[in-house]
Amino acid sequence: MGKISGPSKATIRRLSVYLRCLNRIQGENPECGESSRVISSQRLAALLDLNPAQVRKDLSCFGEFGKRGVGYSVEKLRQDIIKILGLQRQRKVAIVGAGGQLGRALAAYTGFEKRNFRVVALFDKDPTVIGISLGQAGVIHDIRKMPELLQHLEVDILVLTVPAEAIDEVMSVVRSTGIHAVLNFAPVKVSSTEKIDVHNVDLTMELETLSYHLSMREFLLSVDNIPLP
Amino acid sequence: MGKISGPSKATIRRLSVYLRCLNRIQGENPECGESSRVISSQRLAALLDLNPAQVRKDLSCFGEFGKRGVGYSVEKLRQDIIKILGLQRQRKVAIVGAGGQLGRALAAYTGFEKRNFRVVALFDKDPTVIGISLGQAGVIHDIRKMPELLQHLEVDILVLTVPAEAIDEVMSVVRSTGIHAVLNFAPVKVSSTEKIDVHNVDLTMELETLSYHLSMREFLLSVDNIPLP
Repeated sequence: MGKISGPSKATIRRLSVYLRCLNRIQGENPECGESSRVISSQRLAALLDLNPAQVRKDLSCFGEFGKRGVGYSVEKLRQDIIKILGLQRQRKVAIVGAGGQLGRALAAYTGFEKRNFRVVALFDKDPTVIGISLGQAGVIHDIRKMPELLQHLEVDILVLTVPAEAIDEVMSVVRSTGIHAVLNFAPVKVSSTEKIDVHNVDLTMELETLSYHLSMREFLLSVDNIPLP
Repeated sequence: MGKISGPSKATIRRLSVYLRCLNRIQGENPECGESSRVISSQRLAALLDLNPAQVRKDLSCFGEFGKRGVGYSVEKLRQDIIKILGLQRQRKVAIVGAGGQLGRALAAYTGFEKRNFRVVALFDKDPTVIGISLGQAGVIHDIRKMPELLQHLEVDILVLTVPAEAIDEVMSVVRSTGIHAVLNFAPVKVSSTEKIDVHNVDLTMELETLSYHLSMREFLLSVDNIPLP
């Protein structure tokens, strides 16, 4: 078998965005007429502020979805994306660094379960938190038990909420397991390898987007000197 | 003064992505030659897996940056994006729901300060956490003091880490303040208004992208029946 190639991370990320958008359309109009059961690439692009050509290119990576001049069936496209993203089955998640604040927060985060992800195991290296129970997600295990427990519990995705300085040590343990998917919240970038796909979460990016809108507001105020609404 | 119009949220979000990419290029080659001081839209697009036309369109929203056939000066583009995003000055942040786990986690998150955001105030409505000190970010204040303290401390951005069921109540307090920027971590969508720009963080989206790569891996395994690396 060759390397896993195909669509890029950015395309996959946009699939997730398309899915949220289609879920919303479907949720808003459960009893809608024929016209809203179909969506054009133009309309989907406009809703998400993308180029229609980009939308068509993204979706064409996975086969022929829509009909030229007609568009995509909302429900079929939704189901197809769910299948492409592998979301028809529940994915099991483990949190490493679960004794820390972000780890505890994610263990308790109710948004995951709704979208078919379940936290099934918690790990930490700090002896003062090992054995502590965090509700539904169970007790925090010693990180040394990680290779054995991940296999036993058939964990799909590891979420890392360890401090930046612990990341190298943790990643060397992760590499000794059969894990192929890692979501890293530590404020230090971890690169993907052929065996392990790593996504780095950047919480600051959202603040930067908000900062732009504040700057615009300040700029317009300074130009006009008239209070904004 | 008219409405604040202009580039879309998606464009602004991509500016933040361009900035991270330019920071990385600049950081990797601080002593680089002339050739790496300039970047073409093709190269920037390739690094981020975007359409070159999309990159040019995004940047053209803010004036003429590059020279046709030459590209963009990495450092000038970086500085221009910093200015556009209003990141040349520090932005002050307050956390509402700071007594909860996600709130405490964000109050302690070291990634914000590095990128010029500072948590200056913490609020909660739970009397059992009011008065608790969370280190550098200070003590948790009663949410009723929010309107007064936000103004006094000149807070720019509110981060909401309250439970989904508290969001309506909190937003009605937010609307009574002069705040124009809200980052919402509650697993329920809050819409922007003309006065308040709201960004909703979706932590599940990252897991969905990882799920796709797992599915691909499983699919290829099932087809080939040869172990992956």
